[in-house]
This record gives sequence, C-alpha cells and structure tokens, in this order.
Amino acid sequence: MPNLARFYFNGKLIENETITLDDATAKHIWQVLRMEAGDELRITDGKGNVAVGTIRSAERHRCDVVLQQVTLSEHKQHSLHLCVAFTKNNSRNEWLLEKATELGVASITPISAARSEKVHFRQERWEKLLTSALLQSQQDYMPELSDMMTIAEVVKKFGHIKDKYIAHCISEQPRTPFAEMLKPSSETVILIGPEGDFRFDEVSLCMDYGFKPVTLGNQRLRTETAAIAACAHFNMINDGKD
Amino acid sequence: MPNLARFYFNGKLIENETITLDDATAKHIWQVLRMEAGDELRITDGKGNVAVGTIRSAERHRCDVVLQQVTLSEHKQHSLHLCVAFTKNNSRNEWLLEKATELGVASITPISAARSEKVHFRQERWEKLLTSALLQSQQDYMPELSDMMTIAEVVKKFGHIKDKYIAHCISEQPRTPFAEMLKPSSETVILIGPEGDFRFDEVSLCMDYGFKPVTLGNQRLRTETAAIAACAHFNMINDGKD
Repeated sequence: MPNLARFYFNGKLIENETITLDDATAKHIWQVLRMEAGDELRITDGKGNVAVGTIRSAERHRCDVVLQQVTLSEHKQHSLHLCVAFTKNNSRNEWLLEKATELGVASITPISAARSEKVHFRQERWEKLLTSALLQSQQDYMPELSDMMTIAEVVKKFGHIKDKYIAHCISEQPRTPFAEMLKPSSETVILIGPEGDFRFDEVSLCMDYGFKPVTLGNQRLRTETAAIAACAHFNMINDGKD
Repeated sequence: MPNLARFYFNGKLIENETITLDDATAKHIWQVLRMEAGDELRITDGKGNVAVGTIRSAERHRCDVVLQQVTLSEHKQHSLHLCVAFTKNNSRNEWLLEKATELGVASITPISAARSEKVHFRQERWEKLLTSALLQSQQDYMPELSDMMTIAEVVKKFGHIKDKYIAHCISEQPRTPFAEMLKPSSETVILIGPEGDFRFDEVSLCMDYGFKPVTLGNQRLRTETAAIAACAHFNMINDGKD
C-alpha cells in the first residue's frame, strides 16, 4: 500500500469496524484532498498498527472509514531515546520535535536542568506536530513524548539501558567523540544539555549512573542542532541493520 | 581569547588599523551589549582571519575598533560541499542555512532540479543568517553561498573532487547507505534532491560524472532534514581529526 494517503487515528484499529476520524483530519480529507466515499486510505495508530480503509462518508466535519486489513509493522531493532533540555525559543523546540520524529527516535524527554530556561510546555500542539511529522516521514511508530523530568528522574528512568551517553561542553572534563563510542546497538539513550550546558554536578550524577561523557564535534552547536546531529548519526550507524 | 564577544567584519583585518563596524553591529554593541570605548572584542572576517580589537568609540550608528593582534585560524582539514534543492517554504530554507553553517560546511549550493519548486533567492537576508550562525557557533570560516545552479553546472563545478555522492530515493535504483560509503576524507560533496526527488536522468548524469548514489536511511526525510543529517554524519566521521 505504498501510494495511499496516510492518516492518524488515536484508537484501536480492528478489521471490518468503522472508525470516525477527528475533525481536523476529516476537514483535510474533504476540503484539501477532496476525497470521497469509496476512496482508499492508510491509517496508522502510531503504535505500529496499520490499516487500509475505505471512506464510507466524507463531510467537512466528519469522515467515517471502514477498515479492511490491519497489519502490524515490524518494530525497529534499534531505538534511540533522546533526552534534551528544551530552549526558551519555542520555534526551536518545535523544529527539534519535528526533526527528531522524522529521524525516528523512540522517545523524547524534555529535561529540566539547572541552567534550563523556563519552557512553556505545549503538550497538545506538540503532539499534533509529532503526528504530522510521523505521517510525512511515512512511519508507523510515534515517539513517546514524555513529561518534563529532572536529571535525577532521567537517570533512574533510563538507568537499565546499556548504551547511555551524556553530551556536554565542559572542555576540562574528559569526553570521547560520540562517533567513536556509538556502535550499532539495540537501545541507546543520549542526554543533550541546555544552552548554558550541563553543570558539572549534573554530568557527575549521570556518570555515577553509567552515562558516558561524549562530545558531538568541534563546532559549538545549539542545543537543538546537537540533538538532531546525534539522532542523524545514530540512524546512519544503524541504517540498513533493521 | 575565549570569552570576548564575537563580531563579523566584511573587509581586511590589519594590525593597528581602525575599522568601522556596520550599522547593525554598531547598534547591537551600543544598545544590547552596552559596550563602550576601551572594551575588547573579537572580530572575524569569515575567511579565517581573527582580530582582537578595542573599541575606540561606540555610538548608536557607528562603532570604531582599533585592531591589535590579527591571527589566521587553522583551516579545517575536512570540508563538505552541500548541494541541495531548496524548498518553496522559506523558513525551511533558512533553517537549513543556519544549521549547515553551525555544522561547519565549506559551501552551500542551491540546486535547481527538474522537480524543484520556485525558490525566492534572498541573498542579502541569507548572508546575514550565515553570519549570525557563524558567530554563534564560534567559527572563523564562513560557508560560501553559491548562486543557484543546474545539476549540469554542479557536476562540472565539483567534478574534480574524489568523494562525490548523490542521495536519492528511487528505490528501484541501487544505492549504498551513506554511512558505509563515507570515510574520513579531505573533501566531499553531496547532492540532496528536491521534495519530489531527483529524476532518474539527473541521477544518471551525476553518475556519469562519478557521483555515487547513496541512501540516508530508512525514514523518508524532508529535503532539509536529509541535508542536515548528511552534514552531521560527515562531522561525526571526521571529528577530532582536524
């Protein structure tokens, strides 16, 4: 089903059942795409389930779809958990969310670090953005967008993962290039600090939990650039190994 | 001179001479940073020359700086030439320019491909954006921003470079993962196609000139995301080897 238009449905996909798409999706189908009863489409639930469906009725505010075949996409063998201190600039945060989703991260955890700026957490808007990036990049697994966490919470949540990294810019502290550390791996977590960097006590806490300190290169990267560089590199290293 | 504020000067930097910074920079120094006569700063010309200077006079529209020491930053051993079909969405283009500069590419060449959308080329605005990203990421070499070129012009311009790649999504055509092809290298060029991808005849032309076809991963990436993923990966591979 490669050429069918893709849509998201936040609910269970069951063969032969009829689902009602949300208002915004219905409007898009009716007004922009001008699809109508009988047209086929592709629905994902963001949890790997994918259905081919046929429109039963399409109106401006309501679109009903009969699901035919439901299949489960294969889960990626390699998953990256991105933990990143969001910036005070909301458009940078949104860009980060879009790009991390395109690059297929497993989860995004906003970190509240000592030097973090106040972040306006826009859950609903951000989830829409993730959905849109998911559909655009033709993936079936939505990244988990976590609530904001302290570093103490992050290290506990991801402590069980073997491949754990913290990227920081404290040049007096030993760091290894990320490219040297990162090997094809089943599950990896990386922490990216705020604009003013992690404080040493934060790096130290992470190291106590087994996070390895890394550098992402010679340039001084903005937070969101560093995060995306790390995601891109993870993909390149693991590419073709799914 | 790590902690001095950084500014750009589009001209020759000569020891003991006095330069006059442009209006916008003067205003920023006077109004935002509130710097005054006697304060030290760091000036780069974007060509690797770096000067420490002292403010002689700072007013809203004019700032004169006496240059003390001028040094030449070491040139990077590894350079990436990014040739990319810009999108019709200007904010995506601007984001691409900012991030490519942060990631230290040697040059950016907008490609006019068969399936390119009409692009509004905003030379002056884009150069300002490059300057700002250069200063922010603490680099001394400005990427060369080329005029828009056809693919025929691009392959001729970069034909002499040994490591040449074209990223495309035509799944029926053989492609190698970029991560497998890319080795630490002195000079590399990569072509990234428009939203609708390169046409086969375009890929074919590039291959005739020795460009190797590559894929950037399993996700379907937007043009600007693909470009930045390639830059990030190039950096990771070459990192620490300068």
